[in-house]
Amino acid sequence: MTKWKCNYCNFEADIFSQYYWKCPMCGNPLSLAFTTTGEIIASRNIWEHYRGFMPFRPEKYRGEGFTPLIIESTSSHKLLFKLEYLNPGGSFKDRGTALAVYYGFKMMFKRSVVDTSGNTGISVTLYSKLYGLNPIIIMPREAPEGKKKVIRQLGGVVVEGEGRVGASKLVYNYVNEPDTYYVAHLWNPLYIVGHASISYEVYEEYGVPDYIIVPVGSGGLLLGLIYGFEKLREHGFSDKVPRVIAVQGYSVQPLYTAMYGRSLEGEPSTLADGIMVLNPPRISEIVSAIKSTGGDIVLVGNSEIIRAHKTLWEWGFTVEPTSAVVYAAYEKFSRKIPEKSSILLVLTGSGLKTL
Amino acid sequence: MTKWKCNYCNFEADIFSQYYWKCPMCGNPLSLAFTTTGEIIASRNIWEHYRGFMPFRPEKYRGEGFTPLIIESTSSHKLLFKLEYLNPGGSFKDRGTALAVYYGFKMMFKRSVVDTSGNTGISVTLYSKLYGLNPIIIMPREAPEGKKKVIRQLGGVVVEGEGRVGASKLVYNYVNEPDTYYVAHLWNPLYIVGHASISYEVYEEYGVPDYIIVPVGSGGLLLGLIYGFEKLREHGFSDKVPRVIAVQGYSVQPLYTAMYGRSLEGEPSTLADGIMVLNPPRISEIVSAIKSTGGDIVLVGNSEIIRAHKTLWEWGFTVEPTSAVVYAAYEKFSRKIPEKSSILLVLTGSGLKTL
Repeated sequence: MTKWKCNYCNFEADIFSQYYWKCPMCGNPLSLAFTTTGEIIASRNIWEHYRGFMPFRPEKYRGEGFTPLIIESTSSHKLLFKLEYLNPGGSFKDRGTALAVYYGFKMMFKRSVVDTSGNTGISVTLYSKLYGLNPIIIMPREAPEGKKKVIRQLGGVVVEGEGRVGASKLVYNYVNEPDTYYVAHLWNPLYIVGHASISYEVYEEYGVPDYIIVPVGSGGLLLGLIYGFEKLREHGFSDKVPRVIAVQGYSVQPLYTAMYGRSLEGEPSTLADGIMVLNPPRISEIVSAIKSTGGDIVLVGNSEIIRAHKTLWEWGFTVEPTSAVVYAAYEKFSRKIPEKSSILLVLTGSGLKTL
Repeated sequence: MTKWKCNYCNFEADIFSQYYWKCPMCGNPLSLAFTTTGEIIASRNIWEHYRGFMPFRPEKYRGEGFTPLIIESTSSHKLLFKLEYLNPGGSFKDRGTALAVYYGFKMMFKRSVVDTSGNTGISVTLYSKLYGLNPIIIMPREAPEGKKKVIRQLGGVVVEGEGRVGASKLVYNYVNEPDTYYVAHLWNPLYIVGHASISYEVYEEYGVPDYIIVPVGSGGLLLGLIYGFEKLREHGFSDKVPRVIAVQGYSVQPLYTAMYGRSLEGEPSTLADGIMVLNPPRISEIVSAIKSTGGDIVLVGNSEIIRAHKTLWEWGFTVEPTSAVVYAAYEKFSRKIPEKSSILLVLTGSGLKTL
């Protein structure tokens, strides 16, 4: 049985009994408690392949997961690029959404709602239509027009708010309506166990890398990657978890502030719209997860993002600017990484929709 | 040893001795002659995995191939959607281009040139940059702006001609310049053996389907699919080749004319820009290949394309209009297909770049 579990106040409940998007007792983000067998089954459907690591298996599959891993050696390091932008909805979010929307379907919701800068909106629309839920996607007015077009063409309704904060506020007009599923990807722990599938794939194809460089907005990707490598260790596949280098922009750096008690001056990072999350609900989990791996955080700005973005495209990686922060961070941080280390860079979202 | 081989006049030459984009003796399209072992090797790199089916193994890999196969059952048929739009360059062309540009690199060319409605241009740019060739992409002025943007951002030079015919003429300003590799995807048989990897993947994941529905521009995809299933039969993996239903639009229907000696009236099909090839050089090969499978051809028009495109997006398939012709053709042709048949629909190109 899969349970909601609050690690702050020990609240527990069967997840199929009632939907909570945060702990009903103390208001903190929930985790999931379920038994993993660690069994890996031969299949091209990731939910079948990794069912021994998942809380349940979604009925539908749209091609999420099993993204390519491209290995490039530099004079000092081995870089592993994970091409998450080749997921069916154009970003890694599909791995979490496939689980999260299936859950909403099983709970008999009729409508899904989410507030997002874009990629989650594409993903939630795609999977909601698949399961017959009507998607309402609440976005900042200034979010990339290309992302809104994709959502509308997939059959989603876009509602615009003033900035990310305005969008988050607008959500409250919907969350308590009947039959409405607030996907709440910043809170929903199904995203974390879904994103962990990236770690399983990297392990199967390459092994456990020494480092991971990962962009942090809500932190769901970072937490998923660490959770995944911890699960692999728990089941005896490996004996280490990579050091995790988190990346944020100078403009929105709650993680840096939480880790170091101060902020860092630097040029704006507005091009990285996908990671501009002011108050990630799991911030304390993120900080302790990074510290547990001996990791760190790197901040980047627009000119570094532009340069990294150009480089990645010329290498054939058609990513959006937000995704380029990992390479910008690598360039900045690489001298601190020992020679011959292997470094996983997660390329999160497609740039084809934001040209 | 891999040889150029002309099936019309029996010309033969080692492919690494000289590059021909058509037979130097009789002007017909060339084929390749090489030994296949049919061995399949465990690897996530398709060139390693299928090296027993390929003329050589490219040094670089950018994540081409191993695209998802989505199986959806209707009341009468089993539909297998092959998500070729999730290739790194956004289309199936990457499978052929990865081989074709590697070949150009081995032949020490410094510059690649190709005339295309777009997808081949994206693909040729991506792989050319990877191997250090400078790509020049010649396109009709009216080709989708989004495709041109992608090419430029990947580092390619776009040269515009008047229509597809004007673009093809412009190519002759380049083909005889020193160090210039005319990729000639309509002619180059490396595209056929590269595209055959789709058949190998479908076979490994599902088996041999009863039917294939495939859009035909140059016919390289159709010829590759049939070649692939024939190779599987030759190596004892299966005993049949699927019936092939080719799809063209009413506006440009050279294949229908070649098969039936007349043209068919219908509404324009200008939305399917990717298959508007007036004179496919391999037309006689295409006709006999279709006939050898007991297949047929279906023509579609813009309103059918629009309807099919909308349906595919609402099912979560983010394809371009050209790719929707296969579903439009399925709707039109399905009553002629026996109950319980399995039907492969190849979804060729990404719609994220043409919103």
